[in-house]
Amino acid sequence: MVCQNVAIIGVGLIGGSIGLALRQRGLAQRIVGIVRRRESVDDLLKRGVVTDATTDLSSGVAAAEFIVVCTPVDSISRYVLESARYCPEYAVITDAGSTKARIVQEVESGWTQHRIGTQGDFSSASATCRFVGSHPLAGSEKSGYQYAHPQLLAGRWVVVTPTARSDAQATERVVAFWQALGARVQLMAPEDHDRALALTSHLPHLVASALAGILPPKWADLAASGFRDTTRIAAGPPEIWTPIFLHNRSALLEALGQFEQQLHRFRQALGTENAEMLSALLTQGKSCRDSLA
Amino acid sequence: MVCQNVAIIGVGLIGGSIGLALRQRGLAQRIVGIVRRRESVDDLLKRGVVTDATTDLSSGVAAAEFIVVCTPVDSISRYVLESARYCPEYAVITDAGSTKARIVQEVESGWTQHRIGTQGDFSSASATCRFVGSHPLAGSEKSGYQYAHPQLLAGRWVVVTPTARSDAQATERVVAFWQALGARVQLMAPEDHDRALALTSHLPHLVASALAGILPPKWADLAASGFRDTTRIAAGPPEIWTPIFLHNRSALLEALGQFEQQLHRFRQALGTENAEMLSALLTQGKSCRDSLA
Repeated sequence: MVCQNVAIIGVGLIGGSIGLALRQRGLAQRIVGIVRRRESVDDLLKRGVVTDATTDLSSGVAAAEFIVVCTPVDSISRYVLESARYCPEYAVITDAGSTKARIVQEVESGWTQHRIGTQGDFSSASATCRFVGSHPLAGSEKSGYQYAHPQLLAGRWVVVTPTARSDAQATERVVAFWQALGARVQLMAPEDHDRALALTSHLPHLVASALAGILPPKWADLAASGFRDTTRIAAGPPEIWTPIFLHNRSALLEALGQFEQQLHRFRQALGTENAEMLSALLTQGKSCRDSLA
Repeated sequence: MVCQNVAIIGVGLIGGSIGLALRQRGLAQRIVGIVRRRESVDDLLKRGVVTDATTDLSSGVAAAEFIVVCTPVDSISRYVLESARYCPEYAVITDAGSTKARIVQEVESGWTQHRIGTQGDFSSASATCRFVGSHPLAGSEKSGYQYAHPQLLAGRWVVVTPTARSDAQATERVVAFWQALGARVQLMAPEDHDRALALTSHLPHLVASALAGILPPKWADLAASGFRDTTRIAAGPPEIWTPIFLHNRSALLEALGQFEQQLHRFRQALGTENAEMLSALLTQGKSCRDSLA
């Protein structure tokens, strides 16, 4: 799969890594980075993260055959719908957001309305959507294209979340896009994705942040590698994680409830000095962790 | 500080690393490893972790001038007191346990009784104790001398916990011992150590274990680096962590309570969709984490 023109909206750690990977693998003729700040335009070109850069979305996507929106989750649906208004009809759009249900729902409910101007009468049968949601499970507590890396996605999982509304060809192209970058793809319904990621990603972030947040500064020297590893992701940017938590709040609250129940079991075992129960709980955690390798 | 004879009781990750560091730095003529299993004796000698090895504690400590007990916390006070019975009078004893108050209290209350046989009448003035507790903040989710490393302690903090009963010279020698291995030493009261470590080490272990324990196997592929880092220490051996949790249960329950309160604040912010509060909590976690560097 080689594209003539790929547009990346939001060139941070993920968007930048996609740009670098497309270049390194020779997968696109032109890679247009669409950014908010003027200063980023020159810097992105200087660093070779993209081949073109602009702050103007409408011109940036005008010739794009593939568009990836890599902004924080609370602006993704807006950028997708705005892109759909200005890009070629054949363009396929995806995103890299950490939540899926709300984004997909907002895009699909806005899609017809946006396309109606260009395509005239929109019968329900033809109302398929050329946006298909994605979530590449790659990242870091670092943010910004300064940390972007062409191998960031290699070997990682990307969840792609087509729905009944998705154009089948668009889904295929989105899957092929991530595979071309070296990632492995798993298809899931948006709601299933959100329930799983609440537990595997959003809850760990909440837990790491809560743990880091209660450390008194006077004890910082006594926080050794265990503490540091357990709280590493708490260094992630609050402006990215706040909207993720809010987008996925019901699934996150459910996952938090499960976690609190497990803490309660530990509390019980400690309270009753029940060595057997404590050991069983620790063994349960160890087995699960060991299975991740 | 060069010793003629150092005994290490319990040669696992920490004990083995002490042996290797003593050898590499030329700090001891003889390093006697005292182990439970016969098979370990030959293997330890073959690997050069110690210069002598035995399963017999009384002969192992008979000529020791410095003894470090590196067994799980629930057997440390027993081995210290047993060593005190068989070692030279001038010997200094310390340990490497992750909890301190209970160990120190058990040793100090048993000390007089054990020494009485060898020293005759024991006036309260001379009832100083040549055991001083230590906790090297180094370790890993790995266990066993197979993973021992001569640099494990280099640059790490060791908390040393003298009390009113501690022999001043013994405290000095314990401090010098860890410094000679390249570690930095911090003196604390045993109870202060336990309160601090409950939060900086034992709670993170509990949290990592609880989080790992609730991951459904079907979602293992979706557990990316964030989940893996946050739960890494959950792979630690339950037989080491169960007695640590029980030894330090009251401080750990207190730390757990603080953590649950912080989780409750997250729950509140999510429940009321309070973006500002959520962002403030995440920022609090990030600031603390960033300060650890």
